[in-house]
This record gives sequence, C-alpha cells and structure tokens, in this order.
Amino acid sequence: MTTESLLNQLITSLRCLPGVGPKSAQRMALHLLERNREGGLQLAEVIAEAMQNIGRCSQCRDLTEREVCAVCANPGRDQSLLCVVESPVDVLAIEQATAYKGRYFVLLGRLSPLDGIGPAELGMDQLALRLEQQPPEELIIATNPTVEGEATSYYLQRMAGAHRIRVTRIAHGVPLGGELEYTDKSTLAHAFGSRLLID
Amino acid sequence: MTTESLLNQLITSLRCLPGVGPKSAQRMALHLLERNREGGLQLAEVIAEAMQNIGRCSQCRDLTEREVCAVCANPGRDQSLLCVVESPVDVLAIEQATAYKGRYFVLLGRLSPLDGIGPAELGMDQLALRLEQQPPEELIIATNPTVEGEATSYYLQRMAGAHRIRVTRIAHGVPLGGELEYTDKSTLAHAFGSRLLID
Repeated sequence: MTTESLLNQLITSLRCLPGVGPKSAQRMALHLLERNREGGLQLAEVIAEAMQNIGRCSQCRDLTEREVCAVCANPGRDQSLLCVVESPVDVLAIEQATAYKGRYFVLLGRLSPLDGIGPAELGMDQLALRLEQQPPEELIIATNPTVEGEATSYYLQRMAGAHRIRVTRIAHGVPLGGELEYTDKSTLAHAFGSRLLID
Repeated sequence: MTTESLLNQLITSLRCLPGVGPKSAQRMALHLLERNREGGLQLAEVIAEAMQNIGRCSQCRDLTEREVCAVCANPGRDQSLLCVVESPVDVLAIEQATAYKGRYFVLLGRLSPLDGIGPAELGMDQLALRLEQQPPEELIIATNPTVEGEATSYYLQRMAGAHRIRVTRIAHGVPLGGELEYTDKSTLAHAFGSRLLID
C-alpha cells in the first residue's frame, strides 16, 4: 500500500520523454489507459525492440537495427556524393525534403571542446579513412549554422582539402516565404555576403 | 529492405501519444536512442504492465491495478464524505491540491446523450447502490463546470436528494490570483450570483 501505484509509475516513466511535463504525462497515461490500450502495448513493444536492437551503421554511423543502414546498403544511391550531417534527424529531414540521392556520414554531434567532444568522438578518423579509400567526388557539408556547426564545417573543409576532394556547403540565407523585415540581422548579413550572380 | 526501419516504426508508434506530432515523435525517438536507452526500456516495461494490469476499482471505478484502489482500501479515509468526479485525473488533481481525506467515486465520463453516454455508462447504478447501502453524510459534486458536467451534477443532486443525503458542489468563481478585468463574463456573473456572506 505504500508502494507507488502502477498509474503513478506510468506517469513518472512517461516524463523521461523530452518535452513531457507532469500534466502531459498524466494526459498521455490516461489517454492510453482509457482509449488506446492496443496502441500502448504496441508502443511498449516497439520501444523495447528499438532500445535493444538499434545501433550504428558501420559505414555512415546513422542509427539502424542492421549492420549497414538502408541508405548505405542501397546500390542505387550515388557513391560520388557524400553529405556530412550532425544527427540522424538531419538525415530524416534531408530525405523528406530534398531529392538527394547520395550517401551520408552522420557525426552524431559537433565539435565542442568544452563538452569534451573532439574529432575522435565524431568519428572523424572513420571519415578520413573513407575519404582515403573510397573518395567521393563531392563532400557536401550540412552541419547546422551554429558556432559549433561552423567549427565542425571548417574542420571538415580542411580534411577534404587534404584529400583534394571538392567541398560544398548547403546555402544559408533568407528562408523561402520569409520577409527581409523579419529576418534576423546575421542571416540577412550572411545572405548579402553570399549573393549569387543571376545569369 | 522495403520494410520500414525500426527507427521509423518507433517514430510512428510514439505518435499514438496525445499531443505528439511528427517532429516531437522524432525528437523523442532520438532522445531515447542517443541519451536514455535505460529509461526507454523501463518506460516500455511500465507501459506494457500498465496496459495489461490496470483495471477499475470495484468500489470507486478509479483506475488501479488492484481489486480495490489505494484510497478505498485505506481505512484512514473518511467514509462519511464521498466526492464524485468525472475522471481519474480529477482524483489526482484533488489529491495533489487539497487536504481532502474522504472517498471518491469516478464516473469516467459525463452525461452526454448525443455521444451515447447515459447514466448506465457512468456507473450511476453502482453509485445508487452505494448511497443505499453505505450512505455518506455528504456527497461532494466535483464535476467540471461545463454544460455536460452541470447536467451530470443535476442528475447527481436528484439522486442524492432521493436518498436524503446532503449534497454540496465545489465553488466556482474568480480564480485566486485572477483579475476581475480578465475574468470571462460567465464566471464573473456566476461569482456575483454565488457571493457569500462575510461574517
């Protein structure tokens, strides 16, 4: 009688999800119990399976339950393009939004010496080996335009330069549908500095 | 290779939680995989156990994994007070906010004939039996102050009246810390109508 009830345990456990506070956790628990026990059971099964089986792709470090992820295992993907991103969500975003058909390399982080994240933690050795053994024609840097992302980008540029591989960086500027008036100053300044010739 | 990856399955499954859209589901999945696999496994276990074992308390209809819930099984709770609420979250809210030490009866819904929810679905028979066999001294109605909640409240008042039990309703009015200026009209009108004598 003094141990916590299963309902309270469920509410507490749900709070391990990011962005879920006490009220949302209550709502989720009650929703599952009252309306969707089937879905809850399935969710439990998939979470357990994912936690146990998902590891990293041996080639691109993306999250996958296989030895080699679906993209790397697909012979239809262009070997000559290699896109470097910070995280698996970036791969999902690029796959959903663009027609990119090349390969990826997932750093799973960004250079951040203060947090103890250096080149070794980001698998830069593995990337260097890959640039050596199967050099792509173009290395596309798609790290986030933050301070750490830029530092990571600079590191990647030097590495690719040493291997004489063409390096590109995805464009940064005013977002489509955005208005100059409401664009922040650094983005606008960057967009001006990176203006392109219309031919 | 054509079947969905485990990561995508996880993201899809997480969307069965209320208020979780595609972006939040991605964030949750990545968070669990990259930072908290331990917590994820435990969450899966608790969800599965809760979905399989939580039922209703035979006395108050609250959600519990036992035959009788902790409140009903606690001999220290006052038998002479019975508080009727719509949902298990209301029990949690009252337990967290007030010093109430009586018993509860959980309707698990509110009268809503258009949705096919009548007295039978709310366990009114069971409540009537309880008022008959173990009549409390006071029946506290704590349904929500919505149209359906008020209808439910009226039904409960009549039922308690038939059993000659004192009925009370929790107070509705201007919330503490609220300002008259920003209080909605119906609440303010209600607060005026229900004003109390200061003695």
